[in-house]
Amino acid sequence: MTRFRWGIFGTGAISAKFVAGLAAARDAEAVFIASRTLGKAQKFAAGMGIPRAIAGYAEAAATGGVDAIYIATPPSEHAAHALLCIEAGIPVLVEKPFAANAADAQRVADAARARSVFVMEGLWTRFLPAAQALREKIAARAVGDARIVTGNFGTSQVPDHTNGMFNPALGGGAIAHLGAYPLSLAQWLFGTATRVQAIGTVGATGVDEDAAFQLQYPGGVTGSFFVSLRAWAPDDFQVLGTEGMLGFRGSIVRPYGLHVSRETPRGFEEAQFGWKAQLRQHGLVHHIAQRTGRSSRGRGAAVDYRYDGNGFHYEADEVRACISRGAVESQVMPLSDSIAVAATADRIRAALHGSDRA
Amino acid sequence: MTRFRWGIFGTGAISAKFVAGLAAARDAEAVFIASRTLGKAQKFAAGMGIPRAIAGYAEAAATGGVDAIYIATPPSEHAAHALLCIEAGIPVLVEKPFAANAADAQRVADAARARSVFVMEGLWTRFLPAAQALREKIAARAVGDARIVTGNFGTSQVPDHTNGMFNPALGGGAIAHLGAYPLSLAQWLFGTATRVQAIGTVGATGVDEDAAFQLQYPGGVTGSFFVSLRAWAPDDFQVLGTEGMLGFRGSIVRPYGLHVSRETPRGFEEAQFGWKAQLRQHGLVHHIAQRTGRSSRGRGAAVDYRYDGNGFHYEADEVRACISRGAVESQVMPLSDSIAVAATADRIRAALHGSDRA
Repeated sequence: MTRFRWGIFGTGAISAKFVAGLAAARDAEAVFIASRTLGKAQKFAAGMGIPRAIAGYAEAAATGGVDAIYIATPPSEHAAHALLCIEAGIPVLVEKPFAANAADAQRVADAARARSVFVMEGLWTRFLPAAQALREKIAARAVGDARIVTGNFGTSQVPDHTNGMFNPALGGGAIAHLGAYPLSLAQWLFGTATRVQAIGTVGATGVDEDAAFQLQYPGGVTGSFFVSLRAWAPDDFQVLGTEGMLGFRGSIVRPYGLHVSRETPRGFEEAQFGWKAQLRQHGLVHHIAQRTGRSSRGRGAAVDYRYDGNGFHYEADEVRACISRGAVESQVMPLSDSIAVAATADRIRAALHGSDRA
Repeated sequence: MTRFRWGIFGTGAISAKFVAGLAAARDAEAVFIASRTLGKAQKFAAGMGIPRAIAGYAEAAATGGVDAIYIATPPSEHAAHALLCIEAGIPVLVEKPFAANAADAQRVADAARARSVFVMEGLWTRFLPAAQALREKIAARAVGDARIVTGNFGTSQVPDHTNGMFNPALGGGAIAHLGAYPLSLAQWLFGTATRVQAIGTVGATGVDEDAAFQLQYPGGVTGSFFVSLRAWAPDDFQVLGTEGMLGFRGSIVRPYGLHVSRETPRGFEEAQFGWKAQLRQHGLVHHIAQRTGRSSRGRGAAVDYRYDGNGFHYEADEVRACISRGAVESQVMPLSDSIAVAATADRIRAALHGSDRA
């Protein structure tokens, strides 16, 4: 088997995770790291054991000698860097968010299709075994009719312009950096939202720091989500249906299993005067719950779908598999999904920042 | 000590819980049960051990002989029934939602103040020890600056016009029947929302079955909530801040404790390249999480604040305490809060049902 050679654009923490993740991939390696400055590239190369450090992204794309390039530069640069690679005929994996806005996303997709060069968004969690299992269970109606999809992602950070997440010029903001997880998962499960609303807080550096957004999906599914750069959050993701609840074990960004609870809808008499309701009336169910630390509602079964390595190699293997069979898009993470998520993110940002950014 | 005598309006499940809850109250009893029909009242009286059954609410208010009346008729009747009692000079505890809309809520409050008759919304959970502790911890900045408040409440039921929750003529809908819990808690903690948005599903019987709503509170707090009559939900409530997470143990409707987790905001370098980030990079943190079933983020300390009985006597004791000291409103559950929550609920319903209901 030929070794699959990756070039890396960008020296941030996500690039380090991707390179570390390749250890679990099928015979893959990172052969160069590119940065704006040689010093940064050399430091990353030394730290991560990459043979070659290149100054400049255009120079790196022109150098070639790779089977694909992973782009993890700031979101504001994603489209320009993807276009460099596409022009050079090199397959591209673009870290999320796919682009700074829907127009950029469309431009990259158009170029990729025109040149028949493989391009995929690096929404790595979509390829984890737990995410795949979640989608299968929803398709199999494991919780009946899905009615609500909910998720969140947040870490409290000190606002700081040197942190790209807080820098508007680099495509910062909670929606850009964190929103892709719940938005892309829901897009994958329920399609493109028809209505989008958002409320949040734009901070001193000019980016959306907290963002609550709600969406209407086809088929009567309501989405309720929030992300934050300033608050700790449960980082969960759940699909709630008429016949139960289904959610990730572990966080929305690194799920390693599912919680599935099944319960049938209650008829009126049962809900109001059934034996469970009568036990609740006299406090018995309450007392058991208080003493055991358990809810009176079933927590369901936990099913593990563990991932190997740090989880990043699944997307790398998908890129390799697609390229090896001549596909120019992934069926799991198609460009149409990336464009739709970028358009939804634009609508959320317009609501948060004022319609001038719509 | 004189026994405190309650009259009960309405024979639904919530009335049964209230009467059962009086067993843990300070020397209180239910002395009559009123319903539209004598048969229903007699059946309830026999089942719950209440001495007197009365047909008709006006008749019951005129009968008197009670220290207060608990109103748990359908939401569409709350205002009319409260006004009957206020006219008769009898203190009133009105089950949530306080009224079908803000105009009704204002009318009841105006009448109560004009006659100096005690009136309070029966938001029983606000008086539970865990809710009181939650409010104290937020005031003490236990999680730093609050940024996001989130909560939900849902039970999957079979849509049925005989179930008042699904009957628009009786004031049905998820917002009316379930929304009061998260809305009233957030109102209590963070004040009156300045912005309100909602997305949801109006079902075949004409009521909002699923409702996701998000609010902006003074002080930069964003609210993200959903309720459902058609889907099972986690029934949780959390306040997320810059220095940790704070949430109920048990459900939003019967919390018996708190989860408090403290974590300091991360600086950029620490978030990207700190030792925890480096362990994550190589998958070690992931593997421990997968094998132990624990998140890499602290779950915090669990603190129990158990309630007695079925929890309903706390509000009954508050009514008695207020009346005994001559207060015409509760400081814990003032009428201004009930009116503000009703107005917010109106805005949510207007968004869900179309602006004609605004």
